[in-house]
Order: sequence, then structure tokens, then C-alpha cells
Amino acid sequence: MSCIIKSCQVHSALGNPETREDDINWDTVINLDHGDPIMYEPYWRKIGNRCDITLSGYQSLSYFANTKNLCWFLEPKLEEEIKRLHNVIGNVVMDDHYIVVGNGSSQLIQAALFALSPPNEPEPISVVSAAPFYSGYAEVADFVRSGLYKWAGDAHIFAKNGPYIELITSPNNPNGVIREPVVVNGSQGILIYDLAYYWPQYTAITSPANYDVMLFTVSKCTGHAGSRIGWALIRDKEVAKKMTKFIELNTIGVSKEAQLRAAKILEVICDSCLDSTLDNFFEHNQSVMSERWQRLRQVVKDSDQFFTLQKYSSQYCLFKGNFYESHPAFVWLMCKGNEDDLEKLLKGHNILTRSGKRFGSDSKCVRISMLSREEDFNIFLQRLMVIQQVITNKN
Amino acid sequence: MSCIIKSCQVHSALGNPETREDDINWDTVINLDHGDPIMYEPYWRKIGNRCDITLSGYQSLSYFANTKNLCWFLEPKLEEEIKRLHNVIGNVVMDDHYIVVGNGSSQLIQAALFALSPPNEPEPISVVSAAPFYSGYAEVADFVRSGLYKWAGDAHIFAKNGPYIELITSPNNPNGVIREPVVVNGSQGILIYDLAYYWPQYTAITSPANYDVMLFTVSKCTGHAGSRIGWALIRDKEVAKKMTKFIELNTIGVSKEAQLRAAKILEVICDSCLDSTLDNFFEHNQSVMSERWQRLRQVVKDSDQFFTLQKYSSQYCLFKGNFYESHPAFVWLMCKGNEDDLEKLLKGHNILTRSGKRFGSDSKCVRISMLSREEDFNIFLQRLMVIQQVITNKN
Repeated sequence: MSCIIKSCQVHSALGNPETREDDINWDTVINLDHGDPIMYEPYWRKIGNRCDITLSGYQSLSYFANTKNLCWFLEPKLEEEIKRLHNVIGNVVMDDHYIVVGNGSSQLIQAALFALSPPNEPEPISVVSAAPFYSGYAEVADFVRSGLYKWAGDAHIFAKNGPYIELITSPNNPNGVIREPVVVNGSQGILIYDLAYYWPQYTAITSPANYDVMLFTVSKCTGHAGSRIGWALIRDKEVAKKMTKFIELNTIGVSKEAQLRAAKILEVICDSCLDSTLDNFFEHNQSVMSERWQRLRQVVKDSDQFFTLQKYSSQYCLFKGNFYESHPAFVWLMCKGNEDDLEKLLKGHNILTRSGKRFGSDSKCVRISMLSREEDFNIFLQRLMVIQQVITNKN
Repeated sequence: MSCIIKSCQVHSALGNPETREDDINWDTVINLDHGDPIMYEPYWRKIGNRCDITLSGYQSLSYFANTKNLCWFLEPKLEEEIKRLHNVIGNVVMDDHYIVVGNGSSQLIQAALFALSPPNEPEPISVVSAAPFYSGYAEVADFVRSGLYKWAGDAHIFAKNGPYIELITSPNNPNGVIREPVVVNGSQGILIYDLAYYWPQYTAITSPANYDVMLFTVSKCTGHAGSRIGWALIRDKEVAKKMTKFIELNTIGVSKEAQLRAAKILEVICDSCLDSTLDNFFEHNQSVMSERWQRLRQVVKDSDQFFTLQKYSSQYCLFKGNFYESHPAFVWLMCKGNEDDLEKLLKGHNILTRSGKRFGSDSKCVRISMLSREEDFNIFLQRLMVIQQVITNKN
């Protein structure tokens, strides 16, 4: 890092009391490109052994978890805890939905595309999403060049006649806004709702979602990205069967260890919401997110409008019983002025982010993870202030 | 089940001492279609808590296991135990191979097809395997109608010019024989070795395998099919990178819980081979397999040649230090005479098997799992004898 940066005054009000200015290593690369949810680790450390799970050598040898279930590899305990969690939070209506478990929501997106694509068409069905859309969709849809489905880009400008699949991410990745389908000739749209971030730590639960195809993931709900557990809530039995078939052919099911641990984690989370002697998981982490967003907004406010952030209106949350703004898992940061490659600018200051171009948007925007370690978040804010000072000094 | 069967004399020498004839429920459907490895459960029960693993709530939150590794989601402990196991068994030369972990070997097959297919060809590359071939290959290659690769059937009759991918399963699923590539114009063949069954409980380890692409799975090595852990040993760095990319896009890695448990299981297995006070995993289960095969051969021998089995020559095993015949994980059972649908015949006696047609072969053959519960294996043998008696009485 340059001497200019080292010599800059760091705003003392924003420093973590545990991180003194002298401690900051300006050469450390802070990776905020991925949404790796390490932010949740302190909560889970605090929980102690309440969430421990022991697996014996003789457990779960079989491919099968429940031969009577449509999704024959779904552990009954996980099914029970998923239902209980949605019931406690009230973010979903799922009385008539089937649950299909997957190796994370990436696999479930592919399973849903497989299940919803017409099987015997000469041309693959178009898959769209409104820009800025999740950067993974295009690659996930196209990497094996499927003859069943094909990425067709921004839903706003999609003009082809005939059926298509629209991915609706709500709250949206990268920009955190609540979304609805956007395609104009929407009557022929088959809709997949990616609701990975529809949890109270990120956004107000304004009403229970009730769609035909809804996807969730443990990674963003509890922070256990390493487990690779997601679930789909599917209204139509044949679609649920086809998604199960996809996962059977792709990976012959989903790790029983990961499912059993995810079940335990969801159980502990539900308990924390219902037992007032415990530290409510969602309230605890909402408060972490809220504090991070306040600090970030303060830094950006001080930037003399060089940076701008997405705005969110205050909404009434049915779970919390009060009004609050969203505090998304990602910042969608935009810059003004002559800077036309914000990712590059930040990289020059050892902050890795993801360019807006990857999301079908502009290189004046980047997506930045808000789920990093506290230490990395503090360094990020400090460097952001430094960048602003450098730019102010230039102008 | 019919009265004819109930009234038949069951060969007492073959009955499990724990299963009296009166106890047999003739209506129970015995599912030997899948290779569900429940046979291993008694060994793991006997091991007791030596194989226990406890996971805490704060462990393995991250997507990443080792950012310095080409396969960034591979747990270092699993990598270490895989190397140790191959070293102890001597079934592989792997000094210059990269390890890529997958959600079972099905995913690794797809990852290998993805990595080995030419990326920019107008037509997908042909994927072949010698009949009888594993019934899953065709579906796994074709289910998303990839434009990169396409199933082209039996390698014996493949005559297209140009490059192709050959899957070599050795020992072979379904028939247990040791295999080499077969395609005549083999100079352009890209080879994937599926070595899921190259372990001492199934076959003699005659020499360490040393190929460019080799696939293994915990399911068939240790019996933990529910874990969905497989690994690929890859000589070429770019191929290993592309396989890692496939798994990143398909499932963003592999469950950390499953990897950590698999590492523990492999550790215990290695220990059991090196510490003479422990019950050697491979010797123990080789003895179970050997006894099952002896009992099966006796029943088939008594069948007046209505049934026949694949023959295996005796080979010197470098691991065991003696000669023995293979005792494969599946029986490849053939029938003579007028019966032209053996799967149907067995199904009529409540034994579910997989027809030879599914393996690119004949409906006079079926594949039958030898890895079932002891109780189910006993019932299978008893019913096989009954079928033989019914047929003998008919003729």
C-alpha cells in the first residue's frame, strides 16, 4: 500500500475499539468478493456446545433417508426443522409444498431449471433475471451447454415470444431490493423465487411468501456455507419429483452428515426465537447487520457524495413486530465522477469486490460482502475513508 | 408369494442360524437393485465410538477449506487420509496427482466429462463404455442434454472417427471383471478410470493403478454411501482445475461435515490395517464377502445349471500377500433355458434386481447387490433355491 494511505488520518469514531490504528496492516488483502458468511461465527461460538452433534461410524451408511418420502434422501429431522423454522419466522406459506433438499441453492437452481424446462423442445428455454442479477446465474445456467435451458440475460430487455423462465431474487443479490417478476409478456413466464435472503436479519418479513417454486439456503440463513445445504419448497408434485431426479442423477442425494447438522442448527435457531432466556439468533445478527450498515452509511455520508448506496424504505416486520430498513448481506456501492472502474479502484487499495458488470450492470458499481469477519469489516471502512480522502485531495 | 414356494424345502445348510425357516416372511420385498452398502454396518457398530466425530456450531462456516489448494474446498485432513489410505493399500500410484473431492463419484464423472470435453466443438464428444457397462453412465451423461458430451453406448461397437471419452470401470460394475480400454481406434480415446471397486475386499490388488484420471468413492470403499464423498486423482493440473470449476458451479464445493467424517473413517480404516490389535477393515469385510460368495456359488451349483455366474481367476494380492478370487459387490447372474426376462422372474419372487438390458446387455442377466443386510442376503439365497426347485419341478 502506498505511503499516501499510511499517512492519512483514520476517522477515530469508526475504529473498532479492539483495532488500534497502529495494528492495521495496509498490505493485507481484504476479500469481500464472495459472500462468505463468517460474520456469524461469534454467535455460534457464544452458543457453545448447545449446537454440537456427534456422528458415530455406523450411522447413515445408506443412500436412503426416507424411502416413503418423494425426496427419498431428505432426512426426516431436517424436514421437520425446516417446517418449524418457516412457521416460527412466518416468511413462507408452505402447507401444500413439497420439500426437496439440495447441495446448496446452486444445485437447486439447476434442479429447478431441469424440472421446469420443456423436455422435448428443439431449442432450450430462455432463462432471464432482471439486472442487476446474481452473477452466478449465467454461469450456472450455461456451464454444461444444456439443450434444455439457456441464459438469456436481463429480463428487462427480453423480448422473445414464447415460454421462458424468470429467476426472481428477493431480496435481490446484489442490491438488496425486494422484487417482483418484470418481464412484460409475463403470462408465459415460469417463475423461480430465490429467497436466500428473505430472513429477518436482512429485511423486514412483510408477508409470508407463497409461490410455486421457492429456494432457500442454510448458507445465508444461519451462516453455515460450508455445509452446502439448501432446500426448495415446491407446490407441484411432478416438479418436485423431477427436481429430486436431477439431484439423484447429479449427486445421488445430499450428505446425511450435513443434513443432520443443519437440522440441529435450525433446531437451535428456532429454540432461540421461542425461549426468552436464549440469545435470539435473528435479533442478535440483525443488530450486527444494523450496526455495520449504520457505520457504512456514516462513512459514505462523509464521502462528499463520491460514493452512493442503495436506499431502502422502512417496512413493518411481522416477525419482529416493528418497522425497520433492510440491511442486506451485500452493499451495492456506486461511485460518481470520473471513476469508471470501481472494482479496480478498490482493488488498488487491497479490497477485493465484484464489479457491477458481472451482474449485468455498470462498472461504476460493485458488490461488497457485508458478512465478513468484524476485523475485515473495520479495515474495509478505514480504507474506504482513506480512498475518499485521497480523491478529495485530488479534486 | 405363492403356496408352492411356501411348501418348498429350504436347504438347511444355507440358513442363517439366526433366521429360522418359520421366521421368513415370504411377502417381504428384498431390494437388491441398488448397491446400498448396508453390509458394512456390523463392522462399524463393532468399532464403537472409535469413529465418532463431534461437530460444533461454530465450525466450518466458510465455503473455503484451503485457499492455497487448487481444490479450494478440499479439507486438508481428508486429503491427508486419502493419501495415507492409498499408501497403506498400495492400489494407486499418486505421487504426481491432484486430488479433487466431489459429492460422490457421480458428480466426479460429470466433472471429468466437463473437464475433458473439447470446449469449442460444434458437436458433443462421444462417451462410451464397454458393455456390460454401469447403468448410470448413460443417464448421467445425457440428463441435461449437454452440448459438450453425449452418451454413445457400447465401446465395443463404437466406430465413429475422431476423439471420444471412454469410461473404464475396473473391477467392472456390473460383472466384477478387471478391465482395460477396448475401443479399436483407441489412439484418440480420452480415458476415465472408475476404480470405485478397486479395494481388497472385492478384488486382489495386483498392481498400483497409475492413470491420468482415476475416480474413487467412500460409498464402496467404507460403506458410507450416505456421506456422498468421492475423490478424483488427476495427473494434469488444467484438468484438475476444470473439474474443481465444475464442482464450484454445480454445488459450490462439498459438505465440510461429510469430508471431516470421511477423513475420520479413512483414518480408522488405515489404523485398523496397521495396528494388529484392531480388527482389519479390509480383511474383516473380505471375509464377509468371501463367505457370501461361497454360499451363493453353492446355491447356484445346486441349480442344475439353470443359473450361471461370472468366473474369476485367482490373483496374487499385493496388500494381502496371497492369492484369491474376486468377490465383487454385485452378482452378474445369468439364466439358461427358456427364461428370457430374469429380472421379471426374480421380481415375481419379491427379489428386486436390475435387468441386464440396463447395462447394455441381455435380459437373461441381472445385476444383484451383494452388499445388503445379512438377513436380506439369507432370504435372497433361500428364495433362489426355491425358484430353482420350482423350475426343476416344471421341467
